[in-house]
Amino acid sequence: MSFEKLDQLGRRIEALDHALAILGADEATHMAVGGGEARAEAMASLAGMRHRMATAPEIGDWIVAAEAEALNEEQAAALREFRRDHVNLTCLPPEFVERQTRTRMRCEQLWRELRTRNDWAGFQPALEGVVTMVREEAAMRAGALGLDPYDALMEQYDPGNRLADVSPVLEELKGFLVDFVPQALAVQEERLAKTPLKPLSGSYPVEKQRDLGLAMMAAVGFDITHGSLSVSHHPFCGGVPTDVRITTRYRSTEFLSSLMGVLHETGHALYEQGLPRAWSHWPLGKARGMAIHESQSLFVEKQIGRNPAFWTWALPVVERHLGESWTLDDILPHVHRVERGLIRVDADEVTYPLHVILRFELEQDMVAGRLEVADLPEAWDAKMQAYLGLSTIDTPADGPMQDVHWPAAAFGYFPSYTLGAMIAAQQWAAIEREHPGASEDFTRGHFDHVNDWRRAHVWSQGSRWSTPELIERATGEPLNADHFRRHLQARYGA
Amino acid sequence: MSFEKLDQLGRRIEALDHALAILGADEATHMAVGGGEARAEAMASLAGMRHRMATAPEIGDWIVAAEAEALNEEQAAALREFRRDHVNLTCLPPEFVERQTRTRMRCEQLWRELRTRNDWAGFQPALEGVVTMVREEAAMRAGALGLDPYDALMEQYDPGNRLADVSPVLEELKGFLVDFVPQALAVQEERLAKTPLKPLSGSYPVEKQRDLGLAMMAAVGFDITHGSLSVSHHPFCGGVPTDVRITTRYRSTEFLSSLMGVLHETGHALYEQGLPRAWSHWPLGKARGMAIHESQSLFVEKQIGRNPAFWTWALPVVERHLGESWTLDDILPHVHRVERGLIRVDADEVTYPLHVILRFELEQDMVAGRLEVADLPEAWDAKMQAYLGLSTIDTPADGPMQDVHWPAAAFGYFPSYTLGAMIAAQQWAAIEREHPGASEDFTRGHFDHVNDWRRAHVWSQGSRWSTPELIERATGEPLNADHFRRHLQARYGA
Repeated sequence: MSFEKLDQLGRRIEALDHALAILGADEATHMAVGGGEARAEAMASLAGMRHRMATAPEIGDWIVAAEAEALNEEQAAALREFRRDHVNLTCLPPEFVERQTRTRMRCEQLWRELRTRNDWAGFQPALEGVVTMVREEAAMRAGALGLDPYDALMEQYDPGNRLADVSPVLEELKGFLVDFVPQALAVQEERLAKTPLKPLSGSYPVEKQRDLGLAMMAAVGFDITHGSLSVSHHPFCGGVPTDVRITTRYRSTEFLSSLMGVLHETGHALYEQGLPRAWSHWPLGKARGMAIHESQSLFVEKQIGRNPAFWTWALPVVERHLGESWTLDDILPHVHRVERGLIRVDADEVTYPLHVILRFELEQDMVAGRLEVADLPEAWDAKMQAYLGLSTIDTPADGPMQDVHWPAAAFGYFPSYTLGAMIAAQQWAAIEREHPGASEDFTRGHFDHVNDWRRAHVWSQGSRWSTPELIERATGEPLNADHFRRHLQARYGA
Repeated sequence: MSFEKLDQLGRRIEALDHALAILGADEATHMAVGGGEARAEAMASLAGMRHRMATAPEIGDWIVAAEAEALNEEQAAALREFRRDHVNLTCLPPEFVERQTRTRMRCEQLWRELRTRNDWAGFQPALEGVVTMVREEAAMRAGALGLDPYDALMEQYDPGNRLADVSPVLEELKGFLVDFVPQALAVQEERLAKTPLKPLSGSYPVEKQRDLGLAMMAAVGFDITHGSLSVSHHPFCGGVPTDVRITTRYRSTEFLSSLMGVLHETGHALYEQGLPRAWSHWPLGKARGMAIHESQSLFVEKQIGRNPAFWTWALPVVERHLGESWTLDDILPHVHRVERGLIRVDADEVTYPLHVILRFELEQDMVAGRLEVADLPEAWDAKMQAYLGLSTIDTPADGPMQDVHWPAAAFGYFPSYTLGAMIAAQQWAAIEREHPGASEDFTRGHFDHVNDWRRAHVWSQGSRWSTPELIERATGEPLNADHFRRHLQARYGA
């Protein structure tokens, strides 16, 4: 039976994915500094095996044959995802992938070097090479999938998401935020004029911060028998669903940024830990995509972790670990701090979407050929001025050279971040409709209700539904900006 | 070119070996407790891929074809080891390997359960099944290799070692030790009657013991940029040569056992770190075998770490870390403690070889069909009485049920431990001949000379020579018991 062959193939690929995931997490947390070269070679070789295994010529035939077999509903769903995976993996010719990998890696290396020197002129030709190939890639993916080029790129990250649906929602959000950011800043300024910000700085030993992080992780649902917390330079969530590795970094003078990072990665981890175990060797058993994944991390970080009700419970926990007794009035101005800035990854939840929308608009134009790389600094600056009132014309390093995504040829990825924020708000609204006491639960450190809801509607579903289907089935309505807008107004408005 | 194909195959196998080694070390040190089942499945699947890759039918043809190619000396050496590996991997039919794996795993599971209950009667049939298959295995290996059956089993662990060479040496050692153990005990008793043993117990925080271990590792040559020290239930040396993972366990009331364990594993690690990097993807680049590997761990633990000269330097280091100022007279009676006991892994360097020789003799008889499993408890007891004056007739759990090796079908492995001890002593004698101040160096914490010698004669040689060739090329004489005997006499004699 051909489905059986796909099932067996899935187990072999799962073993290689397991190795790659653990080797990757280990590299960032426990590897000896001199182990990098051999590790890179081993991982490249394993990734090559995985790719050859997943794109072997007979797999297409197995999929076609399995579609004629008598499958139960679960198997049929699995087969759809086997096909989706296979099409996405095989729609680019191997020689193109090799050429693109070389172009992309050279551009990433240049980016690392030239960004620190603010050297746009040196970087531009390399990025032009990447964009030329991204246009080719988009055209080939579009042909294979029967989609528009930018939709075909997004399809890699968020299956089912289409510009026609996503664009109006982000456009509406942009319109709202361009007005709302100044309002939120004014509200904050007024409040700070009355009550100046109380610094949270002190001396917080790493070991105590780590214990605090572990206590918070466990409280919001992280299963410590199936995961761990380590230290790495860049925080991440990695590993495998039965052993999820999350990381943070610590500053001994300040605890909040590490703790919020831990909560963010815990949100990713809960999704991984909650995926259907029985499907773990099928594409069907994987998380649905980047927007849904980000919705889960932002749910824990923003909807739970920046909710005042959460801090009612959390402040005594912080006090037990760090020995500081702050009040809600001390902590919330930090947790809800809004600031205009040039850097996306440093942005708060009010300004962050404008950083994303700027990139989303520019990359659509680049993919469509309406914008050339040479004109990117001016185009970036114009939008930055229009959306956030800031200029990057003299600092391309903080403008179009800011992120690794474009040098890495990851076009179509940026919208996932803000879609995730909207989806999280929409899920929270759905939960509150069902269970109006959800926020009240947080004051007692109870997170079962929000976790049960997300387990039922998101985590346990794996890749059963497309991104928009999953959103609508879970929340009862298609993706929209209303809930996120109301969330921001309630938290940051007058 | 066929050699090129083998070279490429070697790189793919190296990647899988890298993954298996890191996943294995990670499992014992950093894996979440609930991650075991998925880890076991992933590792079994990767090990299966590795086996299929290394035994693919075309490889035999590549080897034959490569033997007709123009190869340089290094490539010719590599090819010899490719062939050796291939013969060892393919000389058993796959159906036999499967049947043996099932038999062995059932016996290991039973062993874990029944050993704690001292239940020989329940265990005997399972071990009989294993021994029956080991006899078949030995016959098949013997046929493929043109060796005697027990030699063919040893060949897996120490290529080139033959009973005809090894047996007389171990026989001579046994004769010496049966007399020497009572002498050494009498010497010790007399000394303790004059100066009672001073306890080394106290309170030694794990973090301080760890720092002490790291300081000692670095001093004796461990390259911390290519390895690390972690905690695990059973100490081991794992990982890959560019990232060697060694482990220990700590008791907060006693530091010596953990420290000696760290030195032992450091000896293994130095060998791995010193292997020729350029050959890492060939069997030629691997450590030669178990006896040589054990010689390197025992060199650091016994020849360096239990040498009084070492402790002249080490005691102030211990004091800096643990705050205890002991004298040589305090520490050496612990470091050189001799005790008759039933348990091999707890034995000191004087009694240990008798535990090994007992097993070596019994397993030869079992493989040859001269001894049946049913008669093992009596045979074990008789030798235990003759060699160490102890009885195990009522405690088979501490007799023939003591070790995992036989349930795991690892016959031919035991001699490696004591061969390693003899080789270490023989290497030390060769070093002292060349550099009479070697011991004196230790008092100043200088280990360059012993490391340079071992790097040149052992580590950098990989699998270039058979076990006996390596011994003779390094030390100028074939394996013999003289140096080990003199070492024991000097350290423990009257």
